[in-house]
Amino acid sequence: MIYFDNAATTFPKMKSLYRDTMTLYEKFGTNFSRNHCPESLQLSNIFSNLKENIKKIFSVPSSFEVIINSSATFSANEILRGLDFSNIKNIYISPFEHNSIYRVLKDIEKNNNFNIETIPFDNFQLKKDELILNFMSKKPDLIICTHASNVFGNIIPIEEIFSLGKKYNSINILDGAQTGGVLDFSTITPLSDFIIFAGHKNLYGPSGIGGYIYNKSIHLNPLLHGGTGIKSEEINMPKDIPEKFQAGSPNTLGIIGLYLSTKELLEIGIENICKKKYENFNFLYETLENYDYDLKILSPKENNIGIISLTSCNHTPQEIEKLLNTYDIAVRVGLHCAPLAHIHMNTISSGGTIRMSIGYFNSSSDFEILDDTLNEIL
Amino acid sequence: MIYFDNAATTFPKMKSLYRDTMTLYEKFGTNFSRNHCPESLQLSNIFSNLKENIKKIFSVPSSFEVIINSSATFSANEILRGLDFSNIKNIYISPFEHNSIYRVLKDIEKNNNFNIETIPFDNFQLKKDELILNFMSKKPDLIICTHASNVFGNIIPIEEIFSLGKKYNSINILDGAQTGGVLDFSTITPLSDFIIFAGHKNLYGPSGIGGYIYNKSIHLNPLLHGGTGIKSEEINMPKDIPEKFQAGSPNTLGIIGLYLSTKELLEIGIENICKKKYENFNFLYETLENYDYDLKILSPKENNIGIISLTSCNHTPQEIEKLLNTYDIAVRVGLHCAPLAHIHMNTISSGGTIRMSIGYFNSSSDFEILDDTLNEIL
Repeated sequence: MIYFDNAATTFPKMKSLYRDTMTLYEKFGTNFSRNHCPESLQLSNIFSNLKENIKKIFSVPSSFEVIINSSATFSANEILRGLDFSNIKNIYISPFEHNSIYRVLKDIEKNNNFNIETIPFDNFQLKKDELILNFMSKKPDLIICTHASNVFGNIIPIEEIFSLGKKYNSINILDGAQTGGVLDFSTITPLSDFIIFAGHKNLYGPSGIGGYIYNKSIHLNPLLHGGTGIKSEEINMPKDIPEKFQAGSPNTLGIIGLYLSTKELLEIGIENICKKKYENFNFLYETLENYDYDLKILSPKENNIGIISLTSCNHTPQEIEKLLNTYDIAVRVGLHCAPLAHIHMNTISSGGTIRMSIGYFNSSSDFEILDDTLNEIL
Repeated sequence: MIYFDNAATTFPKMKSLYRDTMTLYEKFGTNFSRNHCPESLQLSNIFSNLKENIKKIFSVPSSFEVIINSSATFSANEILRGLDFSNIKNIYISPFEHNSIYRVLKDIEKNNNFNIETIPFDNFQLKKDELILNFMSKKPDLIICTHASNVFGNIIPIEEIFSLGKKYNSINILDGAQTGGVLDFSTITPLSDFIIFAGHKNLYGPSGIGGYIYNKSIHLNPLLHGGTGIKSEEINMPKDIPEKFQAGSPNTLGIIGLYLSTKELLEIGIENICKKKYENFNFLYETLENYDYDLKILSPKENNIGIISLTSCNHTPQEIEKLLNTYDIAVRVGLHCAPLAHIHMNTISSGGTIRMSIGYFNSSSDFEILDDTLNEIL
């Protein structure tokens, strides 16, 4: 398979994940933090090391906590539903938000009284002056912003938006599902109160594991109640962090897998992964440009996380997918669970876009095969 | 390690899980139900086959759906928070409920007006006549009951309780986290509207995957909102089942692992697994009986899922755990996230219990080593 659906989940994963995850699970796969046998303590170490890796990748200050759970979607739900909305009147979101943010917010809106404002963009360009005026007239209490569009790949100028918001003491939530493991967070994390991440995307970890970086000074209620292994006699969830957000048995298999993949990622070096990703991105971009008689590239060439959305003059996205699938080329078509981005870029009526997203592991032969195939089918 | 903490998570798992999960994940580990490449379709097949296995294990009628998610705790939260409580006045729970039920219920109670009644038990014995009278005076709208106590192992007479409830059209929720893969559900599932299961306990699957059996005629709101891969343009979650309950990327690694373990479990045969489990249970029970000068067995010998809780006359549970750990014997001590069961059985003041729980894979040498060790330390 030639795989251009890395924005959905990266494939393949890090080598050590495939090689060592199950070996460690077979050795230590008990329930950690519940009993105290040596195997369980080994798992606790792996869990701590995973958190250290996440802290390095996201440049997390020591006052922040890393919460590990089942997914980025779970994280978005826990954060948004766990906030106290009584003092939140104006919420700003980007026009590129995923349904994992937008649907949650619209559901919370049913029982709360707030305005949802859109951060102004001209295509992929932040209209900063307009945003400054908007913030002056409607003070931002909460800003929720994706770091890069999962549809078009454009990187959002988070630092500008979040630092403007912080002048009004806004709570800043960054959806880093697409960008963790690729971009530099050193100037962004200190401006963020929450950063959502997915284990299975650019951290090259397994599915079923994700989490968020958490500025503990913001009060947050947990989404799940249940057993935590501590203070079992209390009817309420313990106030202890991270236990408050860890009801139920942990995903030890996922923890091991993500520990291994983040370890390997840090060993390779994020800058090296990035370099290879951008080489691959340029290969893909240049390949697709050859077919401009049919394919219309909508994504920016600069400031892109590695995702190209396009439409075809002669085919629906679904037809293109079907054609590519017969050549064992995987892409994704449609709305990619982010209708707002399509409304903003006017690609709803075309049935969404054809999305091709590269990863660290794409090789030059992938682009040659894509080239030959497009040559044949278009 | 001699492992007697199978009630927390079974260890080891099925052989095919260790052997084949990662191989299949390396081959097919893309995001299924989002794109349509052959690998993705293979994963969809595995997902369907997993659901078929679950249906066999829990004797699920065709009108019910199997929902797969991250855990039994997640399932309990989704079910309880997703119900419409406007018509629920009286809720009955057993005195053995886990915090994954009780804490959720107590949290929901803060914003709802209902009574929580306890199903009457004399130790492990259901007081059926009293329950009949209770139901007559306070009609059961919702019954939530564990199938077996995770502390004492006693199996609850679910069929009696649920069939009495159904005379009043009660919604019946069964917590089958401990019993799925061990007990026969053929007469119980038709009386249940929801059966919660954990992948990593007696289904011998990996951590990070679980779910529930769902009688679709009961309206349920999803706990997570987000992307589902279908109807992305709608602001609300789709009404389609199971997509409504599948926001976010699925745990494909967990799905593969649980598919393999349930396949092997069905090949071995639940009745054969049970037979071996009961042999092991009897070994453990008889071993522990030799130390009745110090150890007090609290669990029933009959009607037990494979869990023995005990206290010591001369040691706290924590001291016993520490002693056993030095001999590489894993047990769990304390409240086991189920304080209600300890209140009922009067084991709060002893600091909870020492819990030893057997699995299919315990061998006779485990009991010999336990015997030698107890002989030495007590």
